[in-house]
Amino acid sequence: MLGQLTTTGKMDKDKFVQRFKEMKASGSYYVIVFENVATRRIVGAGTVMIEKKFIHNCGSVGHIEDIVVDSSTRGKKLGKKIIEQLKHICSEVGAYKVILDCGEHNVGFYEKCGMTKKEVQMVTYFEGKKTPSSKL
Amino acid sequence: MLGQLTTTGKMDKDKFVQRFKEMKASGSYYVIVFENVATRRIVGAGTVMIEKKFIHNCGSVGHIEDIVVDSSTRGKKLGKKIIEQLKHICSEVGAYKVILDCGEHNVGFYEKCGMTKKEVQMVTYFEGKKTPSSKL
Repeated sequence: MLGQLTTTGKMDKDKFVQRFKEMKASGSYYVIVFENVATRRIVGAGTVMIEKKFIHNCGSVGHIEDIVVDSSTRGKKLGKKIIEQLKHICSEVGAYKVILDCGEHNVGFYEKCGMTKKEVQMVTYFEGKKTPSSKL
Repeated sequence: MLGQLTTTGKMDKDKFVQRFKEMKASGSYYVIVFENVATRRIVGAGTVMIEKKFIHNCGSVGHIEDIVVDSSTRGKKLGKKIIEQLKHICSEVGAYKVILDCGEHNVGFYEKCGMTKKEVQMVTYFEGKKTPSSKL
């Protein structure tokens, strides 16, 4: 389903499980999914990563990432429910804020989710990206 | 020095070391500092957190956070050097992009660092934030 959001590349079960374990071991990620129990298909997903900081009294910040609702299930406010759940998780783990980056066309949606426009996202893409196995 | 950036709260050595160890154990954080070796003072600092994703072929993304240059040392392009180093780290660990959020007034600076304006940051602050010990 993440393929509806962006490029996913080739994924097999081993690769998925390995990445899942890495994310779980770090203790920083909460991934939520909505399942259509009738069809047994996942119809919504979202992730929040909890960043640990020195500032704000060794505070933490939630970073919401990779929100997607299946094309078959749009218009049912599932996106809003995903954001509400992820915000709830951030609040429960004691984060002092939660942030996300979105396109200008999605600002209205996130405002309906109780979020406020704040800063500007800057980006650099790496073209000749190395394999994940290359180390510092 | 982070107090020149934002609220830090009360910090003692034990608390600092504990948070440092947590960050180190997760394997996700790279913190760099510049030291004035004559005065033995830290005069610049920045952090990049590496986020692991399922998308983009189980890719990873660098999140640059908490960039600060000591007020005594501004105007020496130290900020640019910090960003260059953090971007270099992201590239070396195989991230496909690096992002950061900044105020509109800092867009020009980050453009000089080779970054491009992309999205909009949305935020929710938690007022009655719980202690970090509260669990899900």
